[in-house]
Amino acid sequence: MFLHSLYLIAIIVEAITAALAAGRRNMDWVGVCTLGCVTALGGGSVRDVLLGNHPLAWVEHPFYLLITGGTALLTIFISRFLHHLRKLFLFLDAVGLVVFTLIGCNVAITLTMPFIIIIASGMITGCVGGVLRDILCADIPLLFRQELYAVVSALTGLIYTVGLCAGLNNELMMTLAMSSGLALRLMALRFGWGMPKFIYTKNLH
Amino acid sequence: MFLHSLYLIAIIVEAITAALAAGRRNMDWVGVCTLGCVTALGGGSVRDVLLGNHPLAWVEHPFYLLITGGTALLTIFISRFLHHLRKLFLFLDAVGLVVFTLIGCNVAITLTMPFIIIIASGMITGCVGGVLRDILCADIPLLFRQELYAVVSALTGLIYTVGLCAGLNNELMMTLAMSSGLALRLMALRFGWGMPKFIYTKNLH
Amino acid sequence: MFLHSLYLIAIIVEAITAALAAGRRNMDWVGVCTLGCVTALGGGSVRDVLLGNHPLAWVEHPFYLLITGGTALLTIFISRFLHHLRKLFLFLDAVGLVVFTLIGCNVAITLTMPFIIIIASGMITGCVGGVLRDILCADIPLLFRQELYAVVSALTGLIYTVGLCAGLNNELMMTLAMSSGLALRLMALRFGWGMPKFIYTKNLH
Repeated sequence: MFLHSLYLIAIIVEAITAALAAGRRNMDWVGVCTLGCVTALGGGSVRDVLLGNHPLAWVEHPFYLLITGGTALLTIFISRFLHHLRKLFLFLDAVGLVVFTLIGCNVAITLTMPFIIIIASGMITGCVGGVLRDILCADIPLLFRQELYAVVSALTGLIYTVGLCAGLNNELMMTLAMSSGLALRLMALRFGWGMPKFIYTKNLH
Repeated sequence: MFLHSLYLIAIIVEAITAALAAGRRNMDWVGVCTLGCVTALGGGSVRDVLLGNHPLAWVEHPFYLLITGGTALLTIFISRFLHHLRKLFLFLDAVGLVVFTLIGCNVAITLTMPFIIIIASGMITGCVGGVLRDILCADIPLLFRQELYAVVSALTGLIYTVGLCAGLNNELMMTLAMSSGLALRLMALRFGWGMPKFIYTKNLH
Repeated sequence: MFLHSLYLIAIIVEAITAALAAGRRNMDWVGVCTLGCVTALGGGSVRDVLLGNHPLAWVEHPFYLLITGGTALLTIFISRFLHHLRKLFLFLDAVGLVVFTLIGCNVAITLTMPFIIIIASGMITGCVGGVLRDILCADIPLLFRQELYAVVSALTGLIYTVGLCAGLNNELMMTLAMSSGLALRLMALRFGWGMPKFIYTKNLH
């Protein structure tokens, strides 16, 4: 129940940040709306398509389409006030990342997937929405340059799944994984931590 | 039967316009052929993958692959004559949009999907092929800047589905939805109507 | 068994070349790892999603995720030595192309797909991994400009499938198709053979 409330907040936040990304590229309202839906619901959709887990969440609950598309459109009219809330947004985006990750892990656990696929399912759910957003913006995914984004998702999923495997309480592990992931992401944002870059200048051809 | 004939015309037209887009980027014959198939059949494929509706149309009827790939290749040799037919192509492209939309709605209706998913299914079928084409061309999708393209698809699906829900005749609603969608699209092209743009210049980070 | 060993070599080679592509765009370690997995396993995944063939290979054998992601990361540390092996890599990449193609054909044959879908399944398995890599790099796919890459895949699948349809021995046809495809690809690389380009400069709009 608590996770579900957080999920609704997470998809709303993702829709808003995607709408602002659309605005930065001067897209029209159709682009804003599409980018909002795809970013907020795309990670879970790719996960379910890859795992063969039908029906997809938004097909079963079309309400998710309305709320993300509607939020994205609403963002157009409130965008001037959002800049003052940017710290709140970065925080809520971090919450969304760990919530998406835990939901993705849970879906794979319900499907009795092996350990590595549970972690991968969490990471796909947490990270792929933003990758789809960047593909639709014709950019190299921010995920590949961003402050520990994927690492936070991997760590959150690892702590949660290892705890469950060790027979620990589900609520306890969820709280522990969320707070660890959230703490790491906020510290990464605060101190500008990132993964090392790989610079290669030669051509194989 | 009538819808099926229109479907064949629609995938041929989409393959031709995709082949010309490939030519504008100096792609080789492989690119022309691939872009033709993906643009013409991609919308329906994404819809079926998201709805879990197997087998996909072109897997069941591989003939569709041959006709779209073949048309795209043929376009290379007849491209010099096509410019004089550009008004015809814009008209046929609009026909394709509403035909794809109605087929997408019908697929979702057959799967007894909820109302919003029927509309979404029509829009995905009508619009996603062009989005895939633009992704493969490394461009921001034209859909996000184009004259009421997605809006026409949404309106066509809405009129059709609301009419069916109200118990009206299928053929009647199909004709009504097609002519309304077509009229709106042609007027949008004629008068340059588009959705308003969202311009946002700040960075959240 | 022999094909499976070649498959492992092929995904390792694809992961290495994808990691170098990531390095050429200054991606961080997350990007290197993701691009390695997606390029090596993406062709087979897209094929299985389109054919509705679950579970996907890497979902059933998560070991594939570890080996491709791990190889991509390892590439960062050995990249300075790889330039001297570039001829070996171009050879192994060609081996990978024909191996992926034959595996894709076999998957479609096992699913009793029609002839054209068998060829398409081989081409998707052989070529789509590189297309996904280029999409994630925000580039126009190299496939659409590359020396007979897709043509080699089509020819390999054709020889193999026609031979099987004619009742010839599986191992014989596999050897024949592999060596023909490999020979054509190596000659194309050696002599710079490519498909003709389609140059079109007008706009339909």
